[in-house]
Amino acid sequence: MKIARILEKDLPITSPGANAMVNFAGLTTSAVAVVSDTIQDGKTLVGYGFGSIGRWSVGGMLRERFIPRLMAADPADLQDEAGQIDPFACWDVAMRNEKPGGHGDRASALGALDMALWDLRAKAAGVPLYRLLADMYRDGEADEEVPVYAAGGYYQPGFGQSALQDELKGYLDLGYREVKIKIGGAPLAEDMKRIEAAIAVLGDGSRLAVDANGRFDLETALSYGRAMRDYGLRWYEEPGDPLDFRLMAVLAEEHDGPLATGENIFSSQDARNLLRYGGMRADRDFVQFDCGLAYGLPDYLKVLETMRQHGWSPRRLHPHGGHQMSLHLAAGLGLGGNESYPGVFQPLGGFADTSKVENGRVRLPDVPGVGLELKSELKSWLEGAFAV
Amino acid sequence: MKIARILEKDLPITSPGANAMVNFAGLTTSAVAVVSDTIQDGKTLVGYGFGSIGRWSVGGMLRERFIPRLMAADPADLQDEAGQIDPFACWDVAMRNEKPGGHGDRASALGALDMALWDLRAKAAGVPLYRLLADMYRDGEADEEVPVYAAGGYYQPGFGQSALQDELKGYLDLGYREVKIKIGGAPLAEDMKRIEAAIAVLGDGSRLAVDANGRFDLETALSYGRAMRDYGLRWYEEPGDPLDFRLMAVLAEEHDGPLATGENIFSSQDARNLLRYGGMRADRDFVQFDCGLAYGLPDYLKVLETMRQHGWSPRRLHPHGGHQMSLHLAAGLGLGGNESYPGVFQPLGGFADTSKVENGRVRLPDVPGVGLELKSELKSWLEGAFAV
Repeated sequence: MKIARILEKDLPITSPGANAMVNFAGLTTSAVAVVSDTIQDGKTLVGYGFGSIGRWSVGGMLRERFIPRLMAADPADLQDEAGQIDPFACWDVAMRNEKPGGHGDRASALGALDMALWDLRAKAAGVPLYRLLADMYRDGEADEEVPVYAAGGYYQPGFGQSALQDELKGYLDLGYREVKIKIGGAPLAEDMKRIEAAIAVLGDGSRLAVDANGRFDLETALSYGRAMRDYGLRWYEEPGDPLDFRLMAVLAEEHDGPLATGENIFSSQDARNLLRYGGMRADRDFVQFDCGLAYGLPDYLKVLETMRQHGWSPRRLHPHGGHQMSLHLAAGLGLGGNESYPGVFQPLGGFADTSKVENGRVRLPDVPGVGLELKSELKSWLEGAFAV
Repeated sequence: MKIARILEKDLPITSPGANAMVNFAGLTTSAVAVVSDTIQDGKTLVGYGFGSIGRWSVGGMLRERFIPRLMAADPADLQDEAGQIDPFACWDVAMRNEKPGGHGDRASALGALDMALWDLRAKAAGVPLYRLLADMYRDGEADEEVPVYAAGGYYQPGFGQSALQDELKGYLDLGYREVKIKIGGAPLAEDMKRIEAAIAVLGDGSRLAVDANGRFDLETALSYGRAMRDYGLRWYEEPGDPLDFRLMAVLAEEHDGPLATGENIFSSQDARNLLRYGGMRADRDFVQFDCGLAYGLPDYLKVLETMRQHGWSPRRLHPHGGHQMSLHLAAGLGLGGNESYPGVFQPLGGFADTSKVENGRVRLPDVPGVGLELKSELKSWLEGAFAV
């Protein structure tokens, strides 16, 4: 099998309001189609991917750095021994002549490309990606369902506590058991009222995670930790700047409850630094690296190996981003769960249209590939954007 | 003064061959023109900038993230109290709604935009940028000349030791006293012969720096350190991955000679981590952060403040990139010196056409702004690309 061409286009994403740091108006992500030279079941075999959520307008790097390297390569250099397109070989070629360090926006561009390559690879094998990964890395043992939590609770103008409670009730009605809300966009006392309003709906603080989106300095992070101590929350996410490992280490000594971070850590090198220096505790804390923002699966496997070296179970990894690629990684590699955006970031938010959340868990459809086509709105967009 | 429009375009850069990690064929950088609404001396006042060397195809981020935020802002929000366009205010507006962490390619896009804003700001004040910076941060005390070293010694096919010696002699003829060559692209024994060939030309190892461009693992980094111990080199640069702070810390305990790194550290947060965890020694080592790759001057000033907190003199900072912006920072803020690419990366490499290197030092022309127009080839390109 050979790559016939690779297409990319910006995919508009609907705005979910704001978190403590960011207003998402005008957000897009890079969508990629890797078109093969192979017809399967009467149709050209195509892999689709996108770059997760939070970095955008990176198409130039795809068009001028990553894609040309793949298209210029000897096709044999992109194949495995069975003649299939090999995402690992493609990754190495795409990253040729990239300088080390500085892992930011290009990591999202490569994440989109890598997702499309894995979608193609699993479609060629005729299996869902999570099955392929379980065969490759867990002797075939896949998780048949994955714990997911609903990420919402954004700050929106005129959106008070009763609206927040209505939003969370909606998630429970959809089958979720655990939810996450934003903190740090309002004064501490008001945020505590938001938390209490949320717990009143959920019944127990252990079903509520809170996310400061990297906003706090050390003093504020400690203050919030103290104020939230008795709620018994699921986790306290991104208290400070994602690269302020010392803040995290100091907080971890002061705050007994679970901490979480990692969505803005975009490489295995940065993830290793978080584990080396962040003082996080393998018995209770969570990491949330997102392959769609962080170079895709080949680098993610390095992250998992680094976690193992540092004594961390893969179950402590709950990827950010709420996309199907991470859901496959969770099921196939045995991660702890996955984020979900049931109401926001459409058409990417949520999983396959047929995937129902039951008792806080979701099963993956038995369809080859990653399954972006199982979201009808996304399928329409992909087929319109990439007339293959 | 108001910003009338902001233009950006990819500027092709000639290839210098390869270092240990990267072949530079097809390299570009983002050039930016910030066009004011003001006529000065009969011409529209325009600031020019570019994004240094090593990350490219980032124009989409300028067009869709940073520039629209500036153009949508109330002009008063971009001005200082005197009504001048304020690069700090512009920086804050451009970075609105950017997520924290993941400092990579966007840092280069913003570096280009920030350079153009400072060029405009200094032109509006009618002074060279280094004078403006010296007035702002050093009570007017500027360095009248800046130590520079010639960065070359790339690996090129068929380019042996005598060709390397000829190249270095050329730098000495141009007025340089110190040079840097690449290591790590050949076996250790061959690299040592390159080093000895270079020292034979320079007369003394203290005039030669070597650069591994982040290629080595710890064991190789230590081996090279041992092999080079008796040469008394100027510095040993980027031995390992730029984010492998532990490698650097272990090497710093084993290797007595000066170490250097930082060109692939793209933010004040990452620079702080290098100083916190890299084990580098404020009495002998060097850092090489490049504002053109790292968000421009506002974040660079945070880096300098972090260095001060950690006991580092600004004289230990020798910026990467060989561009005029860093030369102004060196002269205006009292850094230790600046890299120079006399033979490569044209039309950006080197300083003003009239700037002669004498005894390893260069003086800055007394012309308002950064002075990109003082390189005739670059001036032609800018005027063609941005028909203002």
